[in-house]
Amino acid sequence: MRQNMNQLLAYFDSELPGVNAFLEAETDKLSGLVRDVARHVLLGPGKRIRPIMTICTARVLGFSGDVMPLACALEMLHSATLIHDDILDDADLRRGRTAAHVAFGTTQSVLAGDVLLALANRLGASYDIPRVNLLLADGIMATAEGEILEMGSLEHPVVDRDLYMQIIIGKTARLIETACRCGAAVATRDRQAEDVAGKYGLNLGIAFQLVDDALDYVSPSDTMGKPEGGDLREGKITLPLIHLFEDLGESEARTLLTSIRDHTLDEDGQQRVLAMVREGDYANRTRETAARYIADAKAALAGLPDRPERAVLSLAADFVLSRKK
Amino acid sequence: MRQNMNQLLAYFDSELPGVNAFLEAETDKLSGLVRDVARHVLLGPGKRIRPIMTICTARVLGFSGDVMPLACALEMLHSATLIHDDILDDADLRRGRTAAHVAFGTTQSVLAGDVLLALANRLGASYDIPRVNLLLADGIMATAEGEILEMGSLEHPVVDRDLYMQIIIGKTARLIETACRCGAAVATRDRQAEDVAGKYGLNLGIAFQLVDDALDYVSPSDTMGKPEGGDLREGKITLPLIHLFEDLGESEARTLLTSIRDHTLDEDGQQRVLAMVREGDYANRTRETAARYIADAKAALAGLPDRPERAVLSLAADFVLSRKK
Repeated sequence: MRQNMNQLLAYFDSELPGVNAFLEAETDKLSGLVRDVARHVLLGPGKRIRPIMTICTARVLGFSGDVMPLACALEMLHSATLIHDDILDDADLRRGRTAAHVAFGTTQSVLAGDVLLALANRLGASYDIPRVNLLLADGIMATAEGEILEMGSLEHPVVDRDLYMQIIIGKTARLIETACRCGAAVATRDRQAEDVAGKYGLNLGIAFQLVDDALDYVSPSDTMGKPEGGDLREGKITLPLIHLFEDLGESEARTLLTSIRDHTLDEDGQQRVLAMVREGDYANRTRETAARYIADAKAALAGLPDRPERAVLSLAADFVLSRKK
Repeated sequence: MRQNMNQLLAYFDSELPGVNAFLEAETDKLSGLVRDVARHVLLGPGKRIRPIMTICTARVLGFSGDVMPLACALEMLHSATLIHDDILDDADLRRGRTAAHVAFGTTQSVLAGDVLLALANRLGASYDIPRVNLLLADGIMATAEGEILEMGSLEHPVVDRDLYMQIIIGKTARLIETACRCGAAVATRDRQAEDVAGKYGLNLGIAFQLVDDALDYVSPSDTMGKPEGGDLREGKITLPLIHLFEDLGESEARTLLTSIRDHTLDEDGQQRVLAMVREGDYANRTRETAARYIADAKAALAGLPDRPERAVLSLAADFVLSRKK
C-alpha cells in the first residue's frame, strides 16, 4: 500500500511543477487588479485534483500532445467557482486562508472569477475541439446549479440524502467529471470512452466531497486549515449531520435543523451535536458511503486501456478515500 | 432618410420576435433562483444590438443556417456582464429599472451572471466551430479588462482621451465586435471577412458608447430612463467631461476631477458642471467624434458582399449615430 502511494506521489511530483508553472505564467499575464485575486486563489495550497485528472485521462487514452493548457483550464474553472462561491457563502476562510473577497473586495473578486472563466474557455477553445468547450460550459452550468440547489435547500423543512447528494454532485462532482471527460475528449472522439472517463470522475468527485464532509467532523483545525465542525457552524447540512437527523426523532431533528440554520445553536449546543456525531460514528459512516462510490469509480476504469495512467487513476481513487486531511 | 429608417425598423421587426422568443425559452429552462434574475435583465427593455449584429453579419456573408442560438448567446454574454457590472458599480438603476443585485441580492446576481456566461458558451459550442468559442472567450475577457481599466483609472491623476477610449473599447466595443466576428465565423472560415466584420463592429461599438455618453448630458430622464448627468453623479468620467477638463486650466481641472471622484461635488456644483458642458457644446463634440467612428464602420462594409444585410448594417450605423435616446 505504501509503495502504491509512493507511485501516486511520484506521478503528482512529475506533473505538478508543470501545472504550477503554467498557472503562474497565465496569471502573470492578467491585469494587476485581478491578477492578485487570481494568484491568491490559484497559486494557494490546493490538491490540483482536477488538472491531474485531465492529464491522466488524456494520457490513458493515448493523447501525446500538450494537455497542460486544458488541465489548467479545469483548475481555473474550479478557482473561479471558489471565488464566486466565497462571495455567496460569505465564507471568511478558504483552505485555511482568508477568502479572496475579504482580502480584495467583492468587486475584484467578481471580476477575477469572470476573467478566470473566460481564460479557461479560451484555453479550451485552443484545442479546436468543439466538444471540449461544450463540456466546459456544462461543467460551469452544473456547478452553478449545485449552488442554486444548495441555496434553495435552505427553504426545505427537511434535508434528506437525495437532496444532499444532488447538491454535492452539482457543486463538486460534476466539475471533476468534466475534468475527466475533457481529458478523454482531447484524446479521442469515441464517446463511449469519454463516458467511461466521466463515470470514473463523477463517482470519484462524489466520494471526494463525502470524505471532505466526513473530515470536517473529525479533523483538528491544524490539518484541515479550518475549525472542526466548521460546516455545522456555517449552517451547512452534510451527510454526517443527516445521519444524526435520521437517528433522532422527527421533531427533535426539525428543531435542531432550524437552530442550525438560524444560527441560534450556541457553542454548548454545537459541542453537543459534535459529540453526538462522534458517538454515532457518523463521519465513518459517511466515509463508508464514499467507499461505495470509490468502488464504482474503480470499476469504471476497467473500460479504459491498460496504460500506466490507469493504475494512477486507481491509486488516486484509493487516496481520495483514505486521505486524512 | 425616413424611408431608410423604416427599412431598418422593418428588419428589426422581422428578427426581434425570434430573438425574444429564443431568450424567453432558454431562460424558462433555468432554475428558479437565477431564472428570475436572468429574466429581469434579459427580457427587460433593451436594444438587442448585439444579436442583430450577429444575425446581419452571418447573413451578409451567406450563412443560411440557424443563427438564433449564437445571436442570443451574445445577448446573454452582454446581460451577464451587465449583471456583474451592476454589482461592481453598485448602480441602482439599469436601463431605468432597478438593478438586478438590488432587486434580487448579490448572491443570486453573481450566480445568474455565471449561468448566463455558461449558457452562452454552451450555445456557442453547439455550432461545432472552435473559433466561435475562442471569440466568445476573448469578448468576455476584453469586457472584464475594460472594467478593470476603469477601476484602475480612479487612481489616475488625470483622465485623458486615450485612457477613456481604452475603457469604452474594452467595456462596450469589444463585445459588439465579438458579435460581428461570431456572425462572420459561422458563415465563413475566411479570416479576412471576419476581420472586416470585426472592424465594422469595433467602430460601431465605440460610436455607440460615445453617443451614450453624449446623451447622458443632454437627454431628460424620461427618455434615457436615468437622470440627466447620471454619469457625473456616479463619478464616471466620460468624453463630454474630458472636453471640459481640456478647456479648463490644469489645476482647475484637477480640483474638479477630485471633487467628482470623491463625490464631494454638491448639487450646485453639479449643476454648474452641467451648464458648462452645455455651454461648451461638449455633448455635440462627443457626437462628432462618434461620427468619425461611424464613418470608419461604414467604410469597412465595402469589404463585405453586396447582400441586403449590408444595407441594414449601414443603416444601423446611421441609427447608432442619430439616436436620441
